[in-house]
Amino acid sequence: MKYFNPGLTGLICIFMSWLFLLNHEKLIFKEDFFFPFYNPGKRVLIVYAHQMPTSMNGSLKDAAVTELSNQGCQVTVSDLYSMNFEPRATRQDFLGASSNSEFFNYAEEAHEAYKKGCLSKDVVEEQKKIQEADLVIFQFPMYWLSVPAILKGWLDRVLCKGFAFDIPGYFDKGFLKDKSALLSFTTGGTAEKYFQKELRGDIKYILWPLQHGVLHFCGFQILRPQINFAPEHASESKRKEMVASWARRLETIWDEKPINCTSSWYFEK
Amino acid sequence: MKYFNPGLTGLICIFMSWLFLLNHEKLIFKEDFFFPFYNPGKRVLIVYAHQMPTSMNGSLKDAAVTELSNQGCQVTVSDLYSMNFEPRATRQDFLGASSNSEFFNYAEEAHEAYKKGCLSKDVVEEQKKIQEADLVIFQFPMYWLSVPAILKGWLDRVLCKGFAFDIPGYFDKGFLKDKSALLSFTTGGTAEKYFQKELRGDIKYILWPLQHGVLHFCGFQILRPQINFAPEHASESKRKEMVASWARRLETIWDEKPINCTSSWYFEK
Repeated sequence: MKYFNPGLTGLICIFMSWLFLLNHEKLIFKEDFFFPFYNPGKRVLIVYAHQMPTSMNGSLKDAAVTELSNQGCQVTVSDLYSMNFEPRATRQDFLGASSNSEFFNYAEEAHEAYKKGCLSKDVVEEQKKIQEADLVIFQFPMYWLSVPAILKGWLDRVLCKGFAFDIPGYFDKGFLKDKSALLSFTTGGTAEKYFQKELRGDIKYILWPLQHGVLHFCGFQILRPQINFAPEHASESKRKEMVASWARRLETIWDEKPINCTSSWYFEK
Repeated sequence: MKYFNPGLTGLICIFMSWLFLLNHEKLIFKEDFFFPFYNPGKRVLIVYAHQMPTSMNGSLKDAAVTELSNQGCQVTVSDLYSMNFEPRATRQDFLGASSNSEFFNYAEEAHEAYKKGCLSKDVVEEQKKIQEADLVIFQFPMYWLSVPAILKGWLDRVLCKGFAFDIPGYFDKGFLKDKSALLSFTTGGTAEKYFQKELRGDIKYILWPLQHGVLHFCGFQILRPQINFAPEHASESKRKEMVASWARRLETIWDEKPINCTSSWYFEK
């Protein structure tokens, strides 16, 4: 039995190993390893807008699900094309009569419907997913310098007044201010094309309405975007590296500080 | 009979009256009045995205149809909600098998389908309308600092590579370079809110991706936008004046010069 008694030297060795494991870059468990019931894990919603699971966007989404699940996070995916998510903002989003039949204003009707609890089921389900999330990742291929229409419809219909913001409850007082948001997207053009300022402007210019005008307006803290330029034109190994790089970033995503989401981030060098 | 002979004074009077009519601000007919078969009229496509005909956007659309038709223009309206236009970019847009089943890239598939003439019927019909138009007016309420999802879907699906642009056939070499485009939209917020630069940025910032990145990229000459701020918060008479002002602008729309659609228009004072 004496053989199993570590003694003082042994205890020091165990302590040193513990310190090493705790600080090792590649260690997945960190505090969860020692306090498995202390940190129940963060909750992540991935709003995913690509038609094909075998696409680059599909791979990036899968990598995020794997990495975040391994961390013990609770991950939910809204796969918009698979859900055949409705992008059109219509009267059918409100159960019951509209509050102003003469001048139909979708935003105002949505606000009223939210307060009365008569928004359509698909919208309410997405709102619940956001409500439960600490981080919302948007994974999409850029279409015409913005999100694809199916994702624009998600923004139009889900982030309604009353749920995501109010007047004056926006920006720092936005209702989603305890959450982070991150745009992870692919482009058709190469990085060089997006940084020819005079011709196309810095890619940050086109992030201004999405990151600042929509997400930050609703209160979200904005994490820097994950941009993969022109994966279609990249080699197989380069594409794999793009996915691996994204997974590596997610290892320490909870330590990241949000960007300073003011006009200077977007328009000053 | 001598009584009806105008004489030299009479001829001068008739000539002066003709000059007066020709230059009178309110005269609708202008050269059409004197040369009714010389100018067959321009062709206009209005891409209209509002759910209700009795809305402000509906009134602005109606005013444009009336004014432009009175000028002898041939006006076509794509009423997206009435058409239940499909915003989602899916494989169903291509009749026949996709060219690359492993990595589905909508933009590349659309390009292939365009070349093979197997794009879906609704997309081809919209492309024909653009092809026939001298001016395309987009009439919509701004949703989240951009077009509503149904109109984003129109841009995503209709302005495909091969039809609207190619590489390097873009900007000045864009395929729609002989046409003009004009964004006519309403906002929820007042003008003051959109000009608090630090908070929301100049409204021109958010026009950059739409006007420059999409429309000008396809070659369109951009006419200055028609922005009606916060009609919901305006009086009835103010709303009527907004519609009248739009109609007055359209009286001389064919004389307008396009904006200098470079980054300086958007980002410099």
